[in-house]
Amino acid sequence: MNKPSAPTPRTQVKRVADYASYDRTLLHAIVDSAYVCHIAFADANGSHCIPTACWRDGDWLYIHGSNGSRMLKRLQEQECCVTITHVDGLVLARAAFNHSMNYRSAMIYGRFEAVDEAHKRVAMEAFMEHMAPGRQREVRAGNDKEYAATTVMRIALAEAACKTRTGPPKDDEEDMQLPVWAGVLPLKAAHGMPVVDEGCTVPAPAYVQAWRG
Amino acid sequence: MNKPSAPTPRTQVKRVADYASYDRTLLHAIVDSAYVCHIAFADANGSHCIPTACWRDGDWLYIHGSNGSRMLKRLQEQECCVTITHVDGLVLARAAFNHSMNYRSAMIYGRFEAVDEAHKRVAMEAFMEHMAPGRQREVRAGNDKEYAATTVMRIALAEAACKTRTGPPKDDEEDMQLPVWAGVLPLKAAHGMPVVDEGCTVPAPAYVQAWRG
Repeated sequence: MNKPSAPTPRTQVKRVADYASYDRTLLHAIVDSAYVCHIAFADANGSHCIPTACWRDGDWLYIHGSNGSRMLKRLQEQECCVTITHVDGLVLARAAFNHSMNYRSAMIYGRFEAVDEAHKRVAMEAFMEHMAPGRQREVRAGNDKEYAATTVMRIALAEAACKTRTGPPKDDEEDMQLPVWAGVLPLKAAHGMPVVDEGCTVPAPAYVQAWRG
Repeated sequence: MNKPSAPTPRTQVKRVADYASYDRTLLHAIVDSAYVCHIAFADANGSHCIPTACWRDGDWLYIHGSNGSRMLKRLQEQECCVTITHVDGLVLARAAFNHSMNYRSAMIYGRFEAVDEAHKRVAMEAFMEHMAPGRQREVRAGNDKEYAATTVMRIALAEAACKTRTGPPKDDEEDMQLPVWAGVLPLKAAHGMPVVDEGCTVPAPAYVQAWRG
């Protein structure tokens, strides 16, 4: 099920190839930790790199937007590249050129497809579940007009590669005795204290209470 | 000095145009808060979206890499799009389709240029200053061989647009009385406790001590 997928010419990592992985479990974890991805595509004006909200369901990555979105139209006509990157720390080595960063990134190649009306509802509910588990049954659900104005698209998590760096700096042997502090300065995505909307008197649900500052 | 730059056809924001800004101070702040950007470019295999470390000096965004990097070669031959995105929170509205995210993003269009040898040193020292202020004078500086193997490139922060969303959810009037918790779940980039390298006995410098967990 989660065996690695074989690299293609586009996903064969060439730079620092020992940081590469084609493991599906890792790919899923990197996607699930993200709220947005960046998508590269091209049109008559050249290349564009657009950030957009994303979520995963099974072996698919989903995005959505207005029917009028230029990007969503273009993405149905061409292949693209979707990238997610988490920066986990600054790696401070003894030598300037051995400095690095710890990170987890995923790149997905392929073509998006629009999903049909029935599937759209399932997909948008999965999006809500990704943002706030359990909230779908609390909110005013989307109506026909809202769904009709929205395009939901998905791309297979098939032609994909991950690249990660973890751990301490790697200095050259001859630099190891230099009197320089070396180590990692970790970075992480953290939660701030929930901010309740003005006039809202409804008690905070569990997923809001659990969102620590 | 920091007056807004006029939008071009590529940077004229069309979707939710009231979130757009062409203010240079905002652009600089978004770039300065980032450790990595995503760059979209194309080659015979299609579009690529590559994450890479970046830093700013004046009105330029810098990147670097090995002379052998495919991306760095391609970026000298074509225009590209550089994007930085910070996700600041999940915006929970009373209606499913009014959910949103708070964010700050910047898109820069143009062509990178490689910088010459003398400039390369200044630029790499600015990169170190961005990661760890004051560290450049502590570490073993790059030698001629290391500099010779490295390409440093810059792109003007000229044709650029920012897009930001802040603040509470915006629900429709008829949904305001629904018994649904509404508000913002903030997200922020946080620091973890510094991890000293095994065998390093050098006291932590000020920028490491200031890096709180």
